Amino acid sequence: MQPDGVIMRNGAPVPVDEARPEIGWLNTDLFGAPVGRDYMVALLKSPALRWVQSAAAGFEKPIFAEVVRKGAILTTNHSHSIGISEYVLSTVLDHFQRGPDRRKAQAEHRWAPTPYREVAGSNWLIIGFGSIGQDVARRARAFGATVVGVRRSASVHPLADVTVSPEQIATFLPEADVVVMSLPLSSGSVDMVDAKFLAAMKAASVFVNVGRGGLVDEAALLEALDRGRPERAILDVFRTEPLQPDSRFWQHPRVTLTPHASPMGSGLSARSDALFLDNLGRFLNGETLVNAVSASEVLAGSDLNIQP
Amino acid sequence: MQPDGVIMRNGAPVPVDEARPEIGWLNTDLFGAPVGRDYMVALLKSPALRWVQSAAAGFEKPIFAEVVRKGAILTTNHSHSIGISEYVLSTVLDHFQRGPDRRKAQAEHRWAPTPYREVAGSNWLIIGFGSIGQDVARRARAFGATVVGVRRSASVHPLADVTVSPEQIATFLPEADVVVMSLPLSSGSVDMVDAKFLAAMKAASVFVNVGRGGLVDEAALLEALDRGRPERAILDVFRTEPLQPDSRFWQHPRVTLTPHASPMGSGLSARSDALFLDNLGRFLNGETLVNAVSASEVLAGSDLNIQP
Repeated sequence: MQPDGVIMRNGAPVPVDEARPEIGWLNTDLFGAPVGRDYMVALLKSPALRWVQSAAAGFEKPIFAEVVRKGAILTTNHSHSIGISEYVLSTVLDHFQRGPDRRKAQAEHRWAPTPYREVAGSNWLIIGFGSIGQDVARRARAFGATVVGVRRSASVHPLADVTVSPEQIATFLPEADVVVMSLPLSSGSVDMVDAKFLAAMKAASVFVNVGRGGLVDEAALLEALDRGRPERAILDVFRTEPLQPDSRFWQHPRVTLTPHASPMGSGLSARSDALFLDNLGRFLNGETLVNAVSASEVLAGSDLNIQP
Repeated sequence: MQPDGVIMRNGAPVPVDEARPEIGWLNTDLFGAPVGRDYMVALLKSPALRWVQSAAAGFEKPIFAEVVRKGAILTTNHSHSIGISEYVLSTVLDHFQRGPDRRKAQAEHRWAPTPYREVAGSNWLIIGFGSIGQDVARRARAFGATVVGVRRSASVHPLADVTVSPEQIATFLPEADVVVMSLPLSSGSVDMVDAKFLAAMKAASVFVNVGRGGLVDEAALLEALDRGRPERAILDVFRTEPLQPDSRFWQHPRVTLTPHASPMGSGLSARSDALFLDNLGRFLNGETLVNAVSASEVLAGSDLNIQP
């Protein structure tokens, strides 16, 4: 498919109903691009579709449910996790190091050495211990943080000091200096961060959401921030994106806000392309694909009647 | 010694000439405090002085030369390295992640997702591979950076991908995305970063100085920054401290400036006290002290006729 949406085969244009692709590669250039919609239509109209490689880690968008309903395999992509984990460490460190105070002092030509908080010895609760959670954990632990990883299976993981099940979050939440949301949105996780969750957070704690906006009751988060606990929210995802211009998040003094940009690291495209090519080789050889998601998981995630 | 400088023994004041301490513990509270000078005088006047534990890693201040000239042992302290390494990663990440652009967009309520540069895959040249250099390396490598460590011995070190001698810096400098100065000031390192050094740096590279201001020809650094290479300088130390109010560094758009604050992490005092107590136990048991510096090294460092 060309950038203008015209599908070409052997140098001649082909109507969308006759394209009949077997394989789709929804790379990052297609997400959000005008041609992306045409491309997805071509995939969904194809009776031959057997496999779609997504550039995304999540799969709650309706397109993915339609892919698996057609009986095609959906493979996701975790190339984001490296960049997202850099984003998390960068923003948490900036808060701990009192970046805003330092920048203000520099702007005012003021020599004012000030103590700061170390990540060393801090407790991190990472909710969702997939690829992103693990990459955050690897880095936080290199700083001497203690990591509690939350995953459905609650099985031991070498990158977590402790692994617990979602039911145990309430036990570990009051001890966490940093809480990272890095889980997919599903019927089990929607609105997980509500007033009760926030009230259980530790004083001077930091809340980070790099999962999905739907994980959080945003009104409850704003009320909690008004009360000063958590001390800071680092938010890259929102229930409505782009975030409404009149949202209170923009100017809240306790909010670090980015526009769903945490995955946009310089190495993302190369890693995503490498995964697609690796999976393409497997597909052509009839081997098992990397990151295939079960149809039932995809259908469960897409049943949510909320903004992703 | 009390905060007012009066020395007490068994509840009664003792003149400074009669105090005759055997052990000195120059903790962080004493550095820069009014009583610090009295305390040092008491140490230097003591004919019984056998050991001084410093809270500092460096030893170029004249007091330390006087300590070793008296025949006392000087032990230094590397408790700073954890905090300093957090500072380095925080400031480098903030630059790579385009923190200033993001903060501007948030202030303007502008939803503008922007790609950023990853630490993963970047090359770090860490000049001075002691405690600070090693702690920076441990963290940078957890992000997937490649680390070249520069140390006098150039012996292999498990925290460096490559270890080279100072003579080899010119070979590795043009490949380095991040250059970290974490070595002591000595007659061999003073003005190491001069116009020639800076001209050899890579485009879009970041220069970090957490060593001493005297390592850098500051006029040459300003000229290099004006030309845009390095792309950014992260400076916590200066030839004159506090930095003069009219220094161009304060408002240079390519400078992140902090007031010798990189070591001031929340865990510093506890780690320093623990080291002193550990060494005190060794001293009382006649064992070898941790972090003892050779007298010749101290005397070489103190010969510099420059601001530390």
